Amino acid sequence: MSAPLTIVSVDDHVVEPADLFEGRMPAHLVDAAPRIVEVDGVELWEFDGQRHPQIGLNAVVGRPKDEWSMEPARFDEMRRGCWDVAARLDDMDADGVWASLCYPSLIAGFAGTMFARCSDPELGLACLRAWNDWHRTEWVGAAPDRFVPLQLPWLVDPVLAAGEVRRNAALGCRAVSFLEQPVDLGLPSLHTDHWDPFLAACEETDTVVCLHCASSGWSASRAPGAPLELLTTLFPVNALVTCADWLWSGVPVRFPRLKIVLAESGIDWVPMLINRLDYVMDHSATGSGGWRDPDHTPSEVLRRNFWFSVIDLTSTLELRHHIGVDNIVLESDYPHADSTWPDTGVRASDRLAGLPDDDVRRITWQNASELFGFAVPAERQVPVA
Amino acid sequence: MSAPLTIVSVDDHVVEPADLFEGRMPAHLVDAAPRIVEVDGVELWEFDGQRHPQIGLNAVVGRPKDEWSMEPARFDEMRRGCWDVAARLDDMDADGVWASLCYPSLIAGFAGTMFARCSDPELGLACLRAWNDWHRTEWVGAAPDRFVPLQLPWLVDPVLAAGEVRRNAALGCRAVSFLEQPVDLGLPSLHTDHWDPFLAACEETDTVVCLHCASSGWSASRAPGAPLELLTTLFPVNALVTCADWLWSGVPVRFPRLKIVLAESGIDWVPMLINRLDYVMDHSATGSGGWRDPDHTPSEVLRRNFWFSVIDLTSTLELRHHIGVDNIVLESDYPHADSTWPDTGVRASDRLAGLPDDDVRRITWQNASELFGFAVPAERQVPVA
Repeated sequence: MSAPLTIVSVDDHVVEPADLFEGRMPAHLVDAAPRIVEVDGVELWEFDGQRHPQIGLNAVVGRPKDEWSMEPARFDEMRRGCWDVAARLDDMDADGVWASLCYPSLIAGFAGTMFARCSDPELGLACLRAWNDWHRTEWVGAAPDRFVPLQLPWLVDPVLAAGEVRRNAALGCRAVSFLEQPVDLGLPSLHTDHWDPFLAACEETDTVVCLHCASSGWSASRAPGAPLELLTTLFPVNALVTCADWLWSGVPVRFPRLKIVLAESGIDWVPMLINRLDYVMDHSATGSGGWRDPDHTPSEVLRRNFWFSVIDLTSTLELRHHIGVDNIVLESDYPHADSTWPDTGVRASDRLAGLPDDDVRRITWQNASELFGFAVPAERQVPVA
Repeated sequence: MSAPLTIVSVDDHVVEPADLFEGRMPAHLVDAAPRIVEVDGVELWEFDGQRHPQIGLNAVVGRPKDEWSMEPARFDEMRRGCWDVAARLDDMDADGVWASLCYPSLIAGFAGTMFARCSDPELGLACLRAWNDWHRTEWVGAAPDRFVPLQLPWLVDPVLAAGEVRRNAALGCRAVSFLEQPVDLGLPSLHTDHWDPFLAACEETDTVVCLHCASSGWSASRAPGAPLELLTTLFPVNALVTCADWLWSGVPVRFPRLKIVLAESGIDWVPMLINRLDYVMDHSATGSGGWRDPDHTPSEVLRRNFWFSVIDLTSTLELRHHIGVDNIVLESDYPHADSTWPDTGVRASDRLAGLPDDDVRRITWQNASELFGFAVPAERQVPVA
């Protein structure tokens, strides 16, 4: 492969800029909007009576590794592309990434949890709408051909949330970042019909449900004293568990056209889950009771409704046909510590060398383009079919 | 492969017989030993002021699938091989299994938790010793060439536990069934040096540390209303998380000759964990701080200290060289619902057809034989080298 690949990265992050809420709040809530305050040289977000530092480790691209830490970071210590869209486009060019879907950072929470937790629901909802409007008009609006528009959900009320999904979808939004498992935040379980109005709106509007690793705060690392590396080693476990949880909840049985993408998931565990689902159906005493679709097995529904995203393609790429070549998408995870920036394009070319053009095209951009209904210009549709 | 394979199954279970404690308790504790009581036609174990049913789903071999349930089971509803060693040997013959390592069932807990929880530690320890003596003399003693002797640990005190390990090892015991993560039961974390005296005794005596799925009661399935099948789908996640947790705890760095086998683990997730460990070491801000062995990477230690057991060999067997052919062992899981009984031998022959003889021999019996120091008769060492 001599020509550069076209890469659509389906998992990057914005660091919310300090002026995000300016001019986007109702007049009587302007003073209550989140704002940056400086305390002892540290910049913190202040909202609803609490102060939240920006975690340095979540914005490390371009910094020497010996400066990476969990310490709070100032905007002027971050690479400008974290929060400035013009600089981000330059960084995407340097990375060989054509287009990007950008999740929030701490101030919003991957699924807008900070707004949902607000003591005043009116204020929380106004902030959520401000975030969604900023993301659509300022971030994506700066280069609509290069960013996939994402919205955050209103977790407080699934009927109101459904209305927001429809409103944003009508404005061009293609995806919503939801929680891996709402019970982790004290919200009703996926194994109820509580979320059905919201999920029905997603299915109806073709809004992809994006489940980012750790969006509900859960980790399988649970022992005191464990190093941070145990937590990061286990990131793919979140996606594996989330996928199994959503399957057995019956959500994709009740909403068969719902599209669910697992961010930062990896693909290595998918063949194992497929095998395990088939084995459980074969050996379970109550399999027919726990599974409500007589026409499709859990592993068939897995391949129909779920997509998996890979930061760096690994040797298990040889299992891609067990997974489904159509279900694999790429990500760069800019600006987090896991990111492949600025080598995403080079690494992908290296990892994909020798694969059939069809598979390369599908994995690098075509799957993401079809999943999100996001057009890629004709001249960038390489390798050609 | 025309001749039958020799299979050493490293994960089966005994259902403790009603008379297990008879004649094995100190005189002043005889009346306090666990005993079977019958209440409304149900047989329950009574111990330390509490009553414990035997879960029917844990003893289903030979019963029609429509009779499988979580309801309490009576001994006369179970297949006799669950608790009678002569009948078990017949069942092993029928299954094509030459030798077996048998874990406890509910009354003991996979790692002897019921004894550790006893309100009177003297009574708890006496019961634990009775279980270990019964297992060694009555169960294994009935056919020492066909059972791998296993002991349960004294979880209350790691120094006393070390003494028990040495005592049992001197009597021929080859393995001990420990907890996946002690904090799940309110005990000190693996990420401390609390367990070091016990672990040192295991390393010193070549006693294999066996970590059975769910031995500490943890599951990644956590949402109310989730069907039982989510729990069983996620069994391999326990092993994956346990393996990562033990690695990052530094236990196999401090005890480099310690052998750890994950029961009911599957093998499908191992290549993913290897990739992930390498990726984390490459991308972590604090990797060198969290990992204490300058001479070996986490994935190298994984292959050195851990073994993985498979119930039914799956299509991911093609990844066996990523895992390490020397680290894969087989299991039948008699008499649980997941068991391949009575087809374990037939299925293994089918799955392994076409593999080199060396790989077949390693996976079916040789790895287990070397791991546990358990001799297999010369005439059963097939396929021949």
